Amino acid sequence: MELWFTEQLTKDTTFSIRVTSRLVSAQSEFQKIEVYESRDFGRILVLDGYLMLTEKDEFIYHEMITHVPMAVNPAAADVLVIGAGDGGTVRELTRYQSIRRIDMVEIDQQVVDICRKYLPQTAGRLADERVNLIFTDGVKFVADKTNEYDLIIVDSTDPIGPGEGLFTSKFYADCFKALKPNGILVNQMESPYYPDDALMAQSAFKKLKSVFPLAKAYQAHIPTYPSGHWLFGFASKGLDPTADLKADLWNDLMLATKYYNTDLHKGSFALPNYVLEILNR
Amino acid sequence: MELWFTEQLTKDTTFSIRVTSRLVSAQSEFQKIEVYESRDFGRILVLDGYLMLTEKDEFIYHEMITHVPMAVNPAAADVLVIGAGDGGTVRELTRYQSIRRIDMVEIDQQVVDICRKYLPQTAGRLADERVNLIFTDGVKFVADKTNEYDLIIVDSTDPIGPGEGLFTSKFYADCFKALKPNGILVNQMESPYYPDDALMAQSAFKKLKSVFPLAKAYQAHIPTYPSGHWLFGFASKGLDPTADLKADLWNDLMLATKYYNTDLHKGSFALPNYVLEILNR
Repeated sequence: MELWFTEQLTKDTTFSIRVTSRLVSAQSEFQKIEVYESRDFGRILVLDGYLMLTEKDEFIYHEMITHVPMAVNPAAADVLVIGAGDGGTVRELTRYQSIRRIDMVEIDQQVVDICRKYLPQTAGRLADERVNLIFTDGVKFVADKTNEYDLIIVDSTDPIGPGEGLFTSKFYADCFKALKPNGILVNQMESPYYPDDALMAQSAFKKLKSVFPLAKAYQAHIPTYPSGHWLFGFASKGLDPTADLKADLWNDLMLATKYYNTDLHKGSFALPNYVLEILNR
Repeated sequence: MELWFTEQLTKDTTFSIRVTSRLVSAQSEFQKIEVYESRDFGRILVLDGYLMLTEKDEFIYHEMITHVPMAVNPAAADVLVIGAGDGGTVRELTRYQSIRRIDMVEIDQQVVDICRKYLPQTAGRLADERVNLIFTDGVKFVADKTNEYDLIIVDSTDPIGPGEGLFTSKFYADCFKALKPNGILVNQMESPYYPDDALMAQSAFKKLKSVFPLAKAYQAHIPTYPSGHWLFGFASKGLDPTADLKADLWNDLMLATKYYNTDLHKGSFALPNYVLEILNR
């Protein structure tokens, strides 16, 4: 018997991975959680039918959502991570000795429990003593925070389902208030290619720009995400992601990375014309 | 009945597009040629089962293989294009008034005939009076040329089948000889992601470096190619793709592009660490 995981990129376009077994299929209060084993990609995490990560290429997403803001402010000490139940973002953050506190706010404890058991590659650093795991709604958590964080990383699912509230102007305004004067917010911002994804990217970026004095987008090649072309948002109270890049400081940290480097950092903010057109329409 | 075109990215990973009809299925002397109609991507050209282009995203490939070298030498006048039977590369080249001759050498006349009939979006400029269509093996064609071209674009299929000879050191050495002192060669260089593709990229780049004093790689997001992460090679007798970029000159040409811009040009040469590692191993 052949087992395949298939994701609909659109109604008429699919991406499929042959899997060797299903390790988990659980229905939490918030979503369906599945973990598969595959030859090409190692283990795969699927939420509500959408591929969230594979062991083979998760390094791209997690390095790009973490090291880009950290290289702009390598002195960041207080970090808030929203979502990110698989632990990959926290894994990258714990590599910085400068960081003294990581508040990780995930709505669905069951995702974390399953990732700890089945995805140690990403979840293995959640036990770091600087990490405070808080199981609640990120939207509510951030609402009463003021001038508390150097960096907020919004590592959410799509803006449909439990992640919806993390793509609203109200949420971004609360994040703005929760950030210190040098604060940076980074979020996963969908793909610019397939029309429905591009609309989500456009909407998220528009809201980000309406709240933050500086908002830019950057891109990465993520083979297992729809179209392979993924966007992140970078918003701040003033720090510019390329003009204020601390390349030497970051390189002095000697962090080994498989995707990120400080040249690529600059390059990732140079977007194709059609993407600029979507984001600035 | 549902009709789907499915490409095997690996034995265990597939990308599928629902098609509404098959317009052409022909077996030429060299390969199987198919054209499909689809809702998501418009018309699709398939050679020997591999997707070559879709009307929706072909602009990315054709802009990146053409405007990157042309922005480094906007005075290029004599251009050799090898492969490129769909005409998309020639379409982009004909937009430059400085170009006085485009020799297009395609081994398979039937590809050109079919594209002229079914893919006017790409093939529509093959009738430009500066274009010389030559139906022969590019490997043989270039062998007796000396100091003749400002730019050679190798717009080939994969290094399996009719395109194989276009990925050899002998061919690159003949191209070197065929180029003028300011000459540039650009080639499509496969994807760095899936292991078999990465080996092809590695091999092609190694040979390019062994022949040319300067050889670099650049990348683009091409959603319908395997992994969406595609590489191009840039080799020259001295011109550097970023240090010698003529951004102002190119922007003064006022060419409207949907993907390419001169910021992205620079960014496209900033590669991820894992890609650098593959290319320089």
